[in-house]
Amino acid sequence: MKVLVTGAGGFIGAHLLGLLRSQGAIGGRAIDSLVALDHRLDSMAGVITLEGDLACRDIQRRIAQLAPDVCFHLAAVPGGAAEADPLLSRRINLDATLDLFQTLADAAPRGRAPVVVYASTIAVYGSPLPDPVTPATPLRPPMVYGAHKLACEILLTDFTRRGLLDGRSLRLPGIVARPRAPSGLVSAFMSDLMHALAAGEPFTCPVSADATAWWMSARRCVQNLAHAASMDPGNAERAWPLPVLRLSISQVVHTLSRIHAVHGERLVRYSPQRSVEAVFGRYPVLDDRVSRALGLRDDGTPEALVRRALDLGYRDQAAPEPAWA
Amino acid sequence: MKVLVTGAGGFIGAHLLGLLRSQGAIGGRAIDSLVALDHRLDSMAGVITLEGDLACRDIQRRIAQLAPDVCFHLAAVPGGAAEADPLLSRRINLDATLDLFQTLADAAPRGRAPVVVYASTIAVYGSPLPDPVTPATPLRPPMVYGAHKLACEILLTDFTRRGLLDGRSLRLPGIVARPRAPSGLVSAFMSDLMHALAAGEPFTCPVSADATAWWMSARRCVQNLAHAASMDPGNAERAWPLPVLRLSISQVVHTLSRIHAVHGERLVRYSPQRSVEAVFGRYPVLDDRVSRALGLRDDGTPEALVRRALDLGYRDQAAPEPAWA
Repeated sequence: MKVLVTGAGGFIGAHLLGLLRSQGAIGGRAIDSLVALDHRLDSMAGVITLEGDLACRDIQRRIAQLAPDVCFHLAAVPGGAAEADPLLSRRINLDATLDLFQTLADAAPRGRAPVVVYASTIAVYGSPLPDPVTPATPLRPPMVYGAHKLACEILLTDFTRRGLLDGRSLRLPGIVARPRAPSGLVSAFMSDLMHALAAGEPFTCPVSADATAWWMSARRCVQNLAHAASMDPGNAERAWPLPVLRLSISQVVHTLSRIHAVHGERLVRYSPQRSVEAVFGRYPVLDDRVSRALGLRDDGTPEALVRRALDLGYRDQAAPEPAWA
Repeated sequence: MKVLVTGAGGFIGAHLLGLLRSQGAIGGRAIDSLVALDHRLDSMAGVITLEGDLACRDIQRRIAQLAPDVCFHLAAVPGGAAEADPLLSRRINLDATLDLFQTLADAAPRGRAPVVVYASTIAVYGSPLPDPVTPATPLRPPMVYGAHKLACEILLTDFTRRGLLDGRSLRLPGIVARPRAPSGLVSAFMSDLMHALAAGEPFTCPVSADATAWWMSARRCVQNLAHAASMDPGNAERAWPLPVLRLSISQVVHTLSRIHAVHGERLVRYSPQRSVEAVFGRYPVLDDRVSRALGLRDDGTPEALVRRALDLGYRDQAAPEPAWA
């Protein structure tokens, strides 16, 4: 089986490559070639690297030659950066993404629709969100990033209806813990909070202590992405939110304090910014029963979330991943 | 005020040009220049014609020079034609449409967001539809046409949120009575039925007698489009279905028979095609209260629908249109 990962040099992409290399298979089918695409990539044993811009014709030609059986499409201009440059967002998050879908469909052997696992976003929902969020919640993206992602969800579902692709869109929440480098994501503060307390450093939090957000570790996220490639999605919806832990900032601070033996409550100063609080501070209950029925999973507990997120030797890390260890 | 109508040579476009020419104003503001865009246009007094393809750079440049205050965007590859050529649908119904939105936004004087009345479609809803269809009905377009239209609705709403455009998307039902020439629209049978019975000719109907559809005359449709340009849309949704008459084929046949003094029940032979019946034969009740509250209107009665649709001298035709005569 030939597998392509776009955005492979990114935070989630690197985690996914690691998982796919250690598993060597998806849903019991061996991976014969694993191709990583990004602007810049370090060479990795067992991985074919492809450097370039998804919007370039030459890269689309290379993808057509590869004719992947499975594509994990993670490449994107992130939320904050997209809002600052909507034309760039359109070029990558919409146009190049739709070009990729077409390229994958055109390159596939007749009658074998490639599986496309598309990293969508909870930013397709509106703000403020109704409580709870359900599969019937109207989709009113509050930023251009979510608008482009939603458009691609709709069009990937249409490729699927036409039998050209086998699309599975997963709506990712803020994933932790990203490196502290600027990411262009407004939600990066969730990761920065974790790194600061792990290092015993003070942190100024742009949302209040009782702000609730949806949390998932990068390791759990990529387990879900890999699972999505082989699960039976049924015929109805082709876009689902990932199940999440809904935690307040103070719950996360409490968990971090216990694990790292620090006084998190003293290290964190709350300086809520209205715009950040409005979007990232009021996540309600998520009715994720449909996603769970498909076998998608959250991190389980706040402690497991933190340990996976900060690579603190949580037990599911060492060996190739058994089912939902 | 400068007004642009794209797709002005089409069935609805021609009706809209006629209305705008006779009204000479929109919402009390005089129209200083009325520009019609299409591949081919006859010259018309009081109308500046612009011939070309919306996807051409030169046409987008001409639109930028014009910098319209109001744009009615009707140009589209219709449903059946789009399904037969999804790449053409993407080029016109998605890419060129988004280019138009960007061109209009870029050309506008700072702080004056142009009004864009976008002809969307009831094909953004799924099939089968829940009964009733409400503002909370999930949008699952069953054809590529509806998928591209829905993507543009979402992105026009995003342009509106960013203050660059003042978008109003109207979801049009099948509009009657189109000329009998091939239109690429699967729903064209609704118009063909009207013309056939008006001429006393036999007609083979691709849906059953009790198939229910949503009906609107072209004249009522363009009154709604013009109204949408000046109504106060509020801040919440920016896409609405037009209010419709929900009529069975046999109700329409009965009305046509009475008006034209023909035996419609004998002229029509029912030969339901499964695919047509599935999409165009089961339209449920539409909860259009939000649209009505905005001042949008249906045709009122089956007789008014038929008389307006077939230009049978319904009284609102002769004079410049008073409000909802």
